[in-house]
Amino acid sequence: MYSFQELSIQFNQGFEAPRFPTSPATLYEPGEYFLNIGGKRIRPVLCLLGNELFSELSQDAFHLAGAVELFHNFTLVHDDMMDEASLRRGKETVHIKYDASTALLVGDVMLIRAYEYLQRIQPQHLSAILQLFNQTAKEVCEGQQLDMDYSKMDNVSMEDYIQMITLKTSVLLAASLEMGAIVGGAGKGNRSHLYEFGKNIGIAFQIQDDYLDAFGDAAIFGKEPGGDIKQNKKTFLLLHTLAVANPAQKEQLNILLNSNPADKVEQVLQIFTDCGVGDWAENLKAQYLQKAFEHLEAIAVVSTRKEPLIALANYLMNRNQ
Amino acid sequence: MYSFQELSIQFNQGFEAPRFPTSPATLYEPGEYFLNIGGKRIRPVLCLLGNELFSELSQDAFHLAGAVELFHNFTLVHDDMMDEASLRRGKETVHIKYDASTALLVGDVMLIRAYEYLQRIQPQHLSAILQLFNQTAKEVCEGQQLDMDYSKMDNVSMEDYIQMITLKTSVLLAASLEMGAIVGGAGKGNRSHLYEFGKNIGIAFQIQDDYLDAFGDAAIFGKEPGGDIKQNKKTFLLLHTLAVANPAQKEQLNILLNSNPADKVEQVLQIFTDCGVGDWAENLKAQYLQKAFEHLEAIAVVSTRKEPLIALANYLMNRNQ
Repeated sequence: MYSFQELSIQFNQGFEAPRFPTSPATLYEPGEYFLNIGGKRIRPVLCLLGNELFSELSQDAFHLAGAVELFHNFTLVHDDMMDEASLRRGKETVHIKYDASTALLVGDVMLIRAYEYLQRIQPQHLSAILQLFNQTAKEVCEGQQLDMDYSKMDNVSMEDYIQMITLKTSVLLAASLEMGAIVGGAGKGNRSHLYEFGKNIGIAFQIQDDYLDAFGDAAIFGKEPGGDIKQNKKTFLLLHTLAVANPAQKEQLNILLNSNPADKVEQVLQIFTDCGVGDWAENLKAQYLQKAFEHLEAIAVVSTRKEPLIALANYLMNRNQ
Repeated sequence: MYSFQELSIQFNQGFEAPRFPTSPATLYEPGEYFLNIGGKRIRPVLCLLGNELFSELSQDAFHLAGAVELFHNFTLVHDDMMDEASLRRGKETVHIKYDASTALLVGDVMLIRAYEYLQRIQPQHLSAILQLFNQTAKEVCEGQQLDMDYSKMDNVSMEDYIQMITLKTSVLLAASLEMGAIVGGAGKGNRSHLYEFGKNIGIAFQIQDDYLDAFGDAAIFGKEPGGDIKQNKKTFLLLHTLAVANPAQKEQLNILLNSNPADKVEQVLQIFTDCGVGDWAENLKAQYLQKAFEHLEAIAVVSTRKEPLIALANYLMNRNQ
């Protein structure tokens, strides 16, 4: 059995360029460019870890890992267009480096290419894999649509926000694990527990991400904190604070959301702190982590096989970068 | 066995709304809107005709027909964005009626929904269907990219143009027929001939379409001819004329391509006529039709089964609307 780091290296070796045909270069070079700007390859490694939980690592798991990485990159290319983002991982996004039409088609062809990677697996698993992949892909689009809808709304409930985050982020992590499990021969009960493990880890991770974006140490976090606050982005922290703040704090927060003073980040952080949002977020994250580990516990394989997943969860959850 | 018209009615009955889940409505209502603005449903009916050629019409063929219609509409939604088209079939395009982000996601989710329709077929055909569908989907994206590339180039050869048209338009017609044939139990030889029939019909159809856009009767054609000329669109007619015109005609044509006189359409049509482009196009179309019918002839089924396909080809080729 391999660790996350070992599997990440193995995946990257198998996923080397070219990931596309060569012609037309005007379509496929931008695709290679984007795949080469990096990324932690978390989803494909989850696929391999899900597979390893039930069997020896199989070639099918690597095909699926390629598919989920291509799918994830398709969503990034199109999301960058919708968000009008000019940089990703410090590099120009596709619609900036090339143009919007190219980015549109590059995303489309990455999605189709993901299905080509899926198609390479053994036929007996194809139907179950396709069903899970399609369902997940649709949900990710739904999550992105809800994210855009919510960004224009004044009142978003915590429940709605968690639903959006689940669709936009968590289901792909969950499905990556489950797809690996399917080709590893796992039964439905085990598959379902593994899916729920991934889904809950995903939500816990997002809570932590929102927290670090507000309170993280720039030197460790790798970017200046406060980005979400500057953009008035709805996060776990903001939604909770709006729900529990007293009238004076709420008024002050609304003034800050509708203005842009030089010390906006500091002022918002002060209200967050006054509302005890740090402890609340830590507690909520712990609840989701606990749910995740309960599902992992329920999977009927010898506990030593679960160690790489536990190590990964701990690595993700104690991350400060 | 059913005619094109009968199959079109059957398809539309099975393909009634809702074709999507209901929520989030901000994503799926625009999808339903676009599917409801019409269209001749040629591709899904080709799927049914391909199936009928080898067997009784099966439920699988209807699933595939839905998939190709969804795929075709995905390409239309995204192409309209790239072309900045505000109307399709007289109705507002998705990015105009809603916005660009919605149109982007609606296209994405239509493509995923196409794969959900595919996934409904019997598992024993899934691998072959997925392989053909993926290959075709990728080629259609490549064709669209080439179309955009060529629109910015001064010199495009007839060979390159035919390659682009084949990818952008013909392969989906061909694959629609072949997918129906696969679930009808056709062997590889028959499938391949049917594919080539569809591909050549598609090219012949495009030659006719280019001709009608220039020389069609507005009252019958349903729209004012000359649209391609006004947009300097590269067509079979323009590329051929540029290749065979004498120096004076070529110079005059280049002046017209770089200007916009009130009688531009009439002047370009005059040069087309002087270069004998009508006869040339008629001849080229006949060559592709002949190739198509040779492939149809080679399919090993009793000839009466081929009648609906012959009727369809004749209907498409004598169409003046």
